[in-house]
Amino acid sequence: MTVTSPRGFRAAGVAAGLKASGRPDVALVVNDGPSDVAAAVFTTNRCKANPVLWSEQVMADRSAKAVVLNSGGANCYTGPAGFQTTHASAELVAERLGLGAIDVVVCSTGLIGEKLDREALNTGIEAAVKALSVEGGSSAAEAIMTTDTRSKQVVREGPGYTVGGMAKGAGMLAPALATMLVVITTDAAVDAETADRALRAATRATFDRLDSDGCMSTNDTVLLMCNGASGTEPDAGEFTSLLTSTCHDLAMQLLGDAEGSEHDITIDVVNAATEDDALAVGRAIARSNLFKTAVFGKDPNWGRILAAVGTTDATFEPSALDVAFNGVWICRGGEPGEPRDAVDLSAREVTVTVDLKAGDEAATIWTNDLTHAYVHENSAYST
Amino acid sequence: MTVTSPRGFRAAGVAAGLKASGRPDVALVVNDGPSDVAAAVFTTNRCKANPVLWSEQVMADRSAKAVVLNSGGANCYTGPAGFQTTHASAELVAERLGLGAIDVVVCSTGLIGEKLDREALNTGIEAAVKALSVEGGSSAAEAIMTTDTRSKQVVREGPGYTVGGMAKGAGMLAPALATMLVVITTDAAVDAETADRALRAATRATFDRLDSDGCMSTNDTVLLMCNGASGTEPDAGEFTSLLTSTCHDLAMQLLGDAEGSEHDITIDVVNAATEDDALAVGRAIARSNLFKTAVFGKDPNWGRILAAVGTTDATFEPSALDVAFNGVWICRGGEPGEPRDAVDLSAREVTVTVDLKAGDEAATIWTNDLTHAYVHENSAYST
Repeated sequence: MTVTSPRGFRAAGVAAGLKASGRPDVALVVNDGPSDVAAAVFTTNRCKANPVLWSEQVMADRSAKAVVLNSGGANCYTGPAGFQTTHASAELVAERLGLGAIDVVVCSTGLIGEKLDREALNTGIEAAVKALSVEGGSSAAEAIMTTDTRSKQVVREGPGYTVGGMAKGAGMLAPALATMLVVITTDAAVDAETADRALRAATRATFDRLDSDGCMSTNDTVLLMCNGASGTEPDAGEFTSLLTSTCHDLAMQLLGDAEGSEHDITIDVVNAATEDDALAVGRAIARSNLFKTAVFGKDPNWGRILAAVGTTDATFEPSALDVAFNGVWICRGGEPGEPRDAVDLSAREVTVTVDLKAGDEAATIWTNDLTHAYVHENSAYST
Repeated sequence: MTVTSPRGFRAAGVAAGLKASGRPDVALVVNDGPSDVAAAVFTTNRCKANPVLWSEQVMADRSAKAVVLNSGGANCYTGPAGFQTTHASAELVAERLGLGAIDVVVCSTGLIGEKLDREALNTGIEAAVKALSVEGGSSAAEAIMTTDTRSKQVVREGPGYTVGGMAKGAGMLAPALATMLVVITTDAAVDAETADRALRAATRATFDRLDSDGCMSTNDTVLLMCNGASGTEPDAGEFTSLLTSTCHDLAMQLLGDAEGSEHDITIDVVNAATEDDALAVGRAIARSNLFKTAVFGKDPNWGRILAAVGTTDATFEPSALDVAFNGVWICRGGEPGEPRDAVDLSAREVTVTVDLKAGDEAATIWTNDLTHAYVHENSAYST
């Protein structure tokens, strides 16, 4: 049920001492071919981490044979020396596996603005190479955890091929500072163009719509490696669909483990004039600290939702807006509707529906509540 | 030291039972002339409260003779019946004072999405009319408080005239959901055009640059009433400057009393290509929950600042950015600079300086940290 479930992948996770806790912190996933087709999506943050700057170069030819990942240090805002550390780790992986460094993607996560220990990382890489195995997926998934309380893994079976994945993080692809790293493997035989299109479509509908805390990471990476070992060439639409399902599953695991959260909130915006309108409204709500604290307090505060909707340029009439919490329409036509008491927010899952009454489009954004634990974790994280 | 310091203004604050606590909740400020020139700035939220919808009509002719304000209910998202409550309160004030309702501005603050008790409000208005006095400014300032822990008042003396003001709230003009209401009075003789220009210039450089929690209120109003009772016609530039100083003083009082905050944060963005760039960068930092929780934790986490800067379209090179906390440049050229230990964030006042090295423009944004108390207040506020 992980990145080594598809044929032709090996993985490992080891402890290299990058984490003060001594827990596993270096992961390696290797594609044994025959194909090395790959696709990737990176953070859109303009201040990118060194491993992202490197991996963008690796992915220029849409191929990759291995990915090395570390937790315990983001290697971000560490200057040319930090870039050299990233480059050296790719070189070491390549040398030990008989590859070119330009086929080795690098991902890092942890504190930003602090030097990553190159020696410890290299020692970890040596150990990870030795530990590579077709059973190593779960160890790799554990080694990339930071504030995650559990590892995230998934597997999906297509007709004649398999897709596996692992993820870490507590936020979204863009934005989220609690870096999200995702590695997806498949033994399907797909060309680079198909892989790229499928990955972009899948992330757009899943990770891109997770907005845990409104912050954009410097290190986010989603990597897809396709080795064709199954010999199956899937239909592009079917492959995209299975990949989207894989990403959705991982995204929901990230949502459920977001830093300090007590509620998983699904924001459905319906009857929008355009999908972009629906997304803009959903994101505005997801980024309202007042809305998010209200949900933490189990308070169906629809007024704060309307106030957030009112900050957007979406097409709507304020006096036409309807809002439901868990299906109870407590705001109708911009005024109080059914009684607030009819809403029960004690469960972890909360669904908010906003009806813009402006068209036929819809979109969903997922977010979390803003809690004491979020403030605690993020005020104490680097000290 | 308040709205009744300038000649020709009377005010009152009374308890009408709108607040469950029984504390004062209805305020009235009356301009006794001779001039009734006024200017106002309202929330830019598209989902506006009823008193804002009404007061925009009142201000169409740039004159006002009185303003009635209530806490204990925002009268927002309460539909046509709520608008009638606002209208009725203006009518009652007008009738008792021998004015037209169209000269009476109305402001409300408190919970949104709940009916405002019209009878209690009217009873309060009757009492406030009877209590009007040239000593009533402080009572009025107390009656508009909600989550404020202290009333906010100011007075500034110009050559031959006086400017007085009061404010409530814990956020910014746009945005801030902890509604900001500001009433400024002056006995200077200024025309409507001058008053309007001066108020827009003053708010743009003060309240508009307060960004306490990134949320935009539905009720924000800043009202300036000018009665000319001093007989002094000030120079427009001098008047704008004094008005800006008045607004700045009130803005800093709002910042210092923001909900649950433990730090007042000044974000200076310098050497920007344009003032808009500087403002965009300042706002992006002010809205980063990760940055705000770090300051709460007394952690000079400059990496989170660069990550926020990286989300903007401003002109800069990531590898050129410098960041200082309280004057200590702990990030130089996008890398670690002076030691973090040299930064002491134990005091309430924190200054962050970001040097974009892209030009000669600069701007300042003020914000607060994100604390346990903020989460507590805003998760418990309506229950």
